[in-house]
Formats: sequence, structure tokens, C-alpha cells
Amino acid sequence: MVKITIIGTGNVAYHLGKRFKEKGFDIAEIVGRNAEKGTQLATLFHTHFQNNFKKIKTDSDLYIIAVSDSAIENVAKNMAQSLDNQLVVHTSGSIPSTVLQPYFKHYGSFYPLQTFSIGSQPDFDIIPIFINAIPSFSLSPHGQDFTDFLKKIALKISPFVYELSDEKRIVLHIAAVFVNNFTNHLYTIGEKIVAQEGLPFDVLKPLIFETVNKIQKHSPQDMQTGPARRGDTVTIEKHIDYLGENTPPQYLDVYKILTDSIIKKS
Amino acid sequence: MVKITIIGTGNVAYHLGKRFKEKGFDIAEIVGRNAEKGTQLATLFHTHFQNNFKKIKTDSDLYIIAVSDSAIENVAKNMAQSLDNQLVVHTSGSIPSTVLQPYFKHYGSFYPLQTFSIGSQPDFDIIPIFINAIPSFSLSPHGQDFTDFLKKIALKISPFVYELSDEKRIVLHIAAVFVNNFTNHLYTIGEKIVAQEGLPFDVLKPLIFETVNKIQKHSPQDMQTGPARRGDTVTIEKHIDYLGENTPPQYLDVYKILTDSIIKKS
Repeated sequence: MVKITIIGTGNVAYHLGKRFKEKGFDIAEIVGRNAEKGTQLATLFHTHFQNNFKKIKTDSDLYIIAVSDSAIENVAKNMAQSLDNQLVVHTSGSIPSTVLQPYFKHYGSFYPLQTFSIGSQPDFDIIPIFINAIPSFSLSPHGQDFTDFLKKIALKISPFVYELSDEKRIVLHIAAVFVNNFTNHLYTIGEKIVAQEGLPFDVLKPLIFETVNKIQKHSPQDMQTGPARRGDTVTIEKHIDYLGENTPPQYLDVYKILTDSIIKKS
Repeated sequence: MVKITIIGTGNVAYHLGKRFKEKGFDIAEIVGRNAEKGTQLATLFHTHFQNNFKKIKTDSDLYIIAVSDSAIENVAKNMAQSLDNQLVVHTSGSIPSTVLQPYFKHYGSFYPLQTFSIGSQPDFDIIPIFINAIPSFSLSPHGQDFTDFLKKIALKISPFVYELSDEKRIVLHIAAVFVNNFTNHLYTIGEKIVAQEGLPFDVLKPLIFETVNKIQKHSPQDMQTGPARRGDTVTIEKHIDYLGENTPPQYLDVYKILTDSIIKKS
């Protein structure tokens, strides 16, 4: 049975660990600082919690660092007190895996492209996983090609596995910021605007769902509609007047820039 | 049986007409310029197509103008050759219903908040409809309060009917632009960015679906994540560098403005 150690106690650690456990992996240990969360996860995954980096078990087949971007390097440094020749990856979209290079002989990344939260069950059957193994063709201590090993593990939890360099993963993460973080912010603005008119956010939801529904089968470029797409300057001017007088200045900036960008594309 | 005349042969005319027909309304006539599309719709709705505005049937209970914003006024002018005392509404989010005022005694709007396209079947059971009847309390020629009449008709095709003034409907439409047109444009940018790295748009779809999934139960404001929300300036700088060097200038503008707006909100 493949043994995986998970470092971290947040949403990514929880959902990844849960999926690995469901797929028959042995979670060797949960390592972290938050004893309460760590113990909870360890109980769920039938393993134990370790908060002393000097005592980390050294015989796992893979170590997955699933902590916030800013904590990765420090965690790696702490892990290096016990580990050296083991396979260590992190799950970040925006941090190069080379941040692990000073500490481990075999390092890489294991990036599931999804936004994880406690309340929502991710569907790993559709989530793509991007892997990166350095040195990619070296043999691991287990006599296996590192890339092949990571790919095999990823394929146990998702059918969509891609090998992707650090550079390309960072670009992918930028695209993710546009379609996830930025669209969510547009939903927030939409909610604020209808609230000003005494309407619930619910009135916008069917439109939001349909916008997403359309891109299941079509390229979003072909689905673009609205005043900017039509070059309807009369409507655009009315919107600008309203936003300028009734909303925070950044809403108007967002409106202008996105309208401009759609016009340039059309 | 309530008789409805539909003016227009596009997506809104098609989907509204189809829903009315399914709910037992009599489509008295399809009126428009596009004979091919108009005849198709008329056949579907067991009615006939009329392209001569002077010959419009004058005994319908309601006339719904479902044409593009820029064509509404001209269509109204043409209709006024035959009609006068009838009830006439348009389906636009951004055009005030008063554009109909010079031509008809009873006018208003009937705005289903959804993006309609031929390939996708809208679910009217969740689509909100916003109505506006002017003069709102006058009696129609049928001896009924106009607002009540419109509301009753709207409630036959959707459970979510709101009375909303022209001014408020235009604000609602601005919110719709943010959550529909603008998010679709962000999807387009996302698609372009991953394509540059040789990846299909499909890799972003699970993330897009989950972003929408989260706001079903939570306010988007509480669901905001990403570098801007965290104040992660290191990642933001990396993204700005990449976008500045590798993508059209408007992508960078969009990134900066939305990042800035999220930071101001946080």
C-alpha cells in the first residue's frame, strides 16, 4: 500500500487526504501546527497527528505539503530536519517547486486545479491535476521514475493528469485567478448593485448559472453578448452615469476596463 | 384564452413564445421582418406570420415587443399604424418603457432576467420576470388593472415576478452586465491564457463550475479567495510581469483593476 504523509491541516489537506483515503492509500501521518484541526484530520483518515517536525516518519512514499503559499518554504526547512532523500511535493499553483530544492533531492508539485472549501464536496472525477517532478527522470529511492510515480498516484484520484512545468503552472494559475477569483468579485459587485434596489442576490442566480451553462458546449468568445459586444454606446453611457453617481469608484473602473476589453476583442 | 401577439423573431421571441404556448396561451400572430425565421416561429406556435405592420390583428390581449434594443422605437412607430388602445410591452432591460409612450396609451415592460440563445433551453421555473405597467393603475380596455393583468400573465410562466420601475430595471440590467457579460469575458481571457500554454479550456471548467456552485448557498463576498484577497503582493507582481510580457495590454488592465477592487473591498 502506498504511504502518503500530508503536511497541512487546511481545506486542501482535508479534501486531498479524504480522496487518497477513499482510493485505498495509507495516510502515514498528518503533520502540522494546528493540533485541533490536525487531530480531527488524523481521526478521519485513521492515522495520527504529528506536530514535531523532528519526529516525522521517514518511510512514506510521498510527502505532500498542502499549506498556504507563504508557509511552504518554512515548512520545507522544518521537514528537512528529518527528511532528505524522500519525494516531496507541494500543492501550490503559484509557487515554483524549486522553492523545495535547497531541502530535498527529489521535489515537485502536485496541483489540483480547484478551489477547495470545507462546505463543498469537490468532484475529483473531473478535477485536473498538474504534476511536476524534479529531476523528472531520476530514479526515486524506490527504484521508480519520479514523474511516472507521481502520475500513477495522481491517476488514482483523477482521470485528468497533466505534466506541467513550474512556468506553465504559474500561467495556469493566472487563468484560474481570472475565471475564479475575478468572476467571484463580479458576483459580489452584482450582489451589491441589486441590493441597492432592494432586490435579493437570488434574482441574478439563474443568469449566472446560464452564463456558465453556455460555456459547457461553446467557446466563451462565441457566447459574448451585452452592450459592449454590440457597441451600444448609448446603454454604456447610461451605465457609466449610474455607476459614477451611485457606487464606489472601483465599480466604475471595473465597468470601464471590462467594457473596453470586450470592445477591443470584438 | 388570453391572446398574445409577439413582435420579433429572435431568441427572446422564440423562448418566450414557446413558454407561453406551453402554458396554454394563444399566440395570435408573430410579427416581424425576417420572413424565414418568422414563418418558422409561427409554425412552431400554431399561428401565422405577419410582416405588414398595417395588417396587425388588433384584438390581442397583449403585444410583446421582443426585438433588439435599437429596433424597439421604430417597431413601436410601425405598430402605431394599426394599434392605439392596446397593451404593449417590450422585453428590454436597458430601454425605458417610456420609449413606447408616444405611440400607445398603455405601455410597459416585461423583462425576463436571462440570457437567451437558440441552443440552450431556459428554465422559466427559476427565471425572474420584472414587469412595469404605465399608467400602472389605469384600467385596460379589458376592464382590468394593467399591473395586475401583466403580473397574472407573468405568473403563468414564472413563479418569480417582481414589479419594478424603469429606473430600477436599468440598474438591475447593470448588475446583469457584471455577472453575465463581464464574467463571460473573463472566461474568454482564461481560455486564451491556457491556450498559450497548449492547454484546453476544459481544464478550467471544474473551477468555473465550483465558483458558481459556492454562491448557491453563500454570499460571494464571503467566498472571495486568491492573491488579491490575501494581499499576496509577491504573486500579484509575478502575474503582472507575465501578463505585461505575454498578453494583449487590456488583459493586464483587467487584472490590475480587478485586483485593486478586491483589495479595496477586503
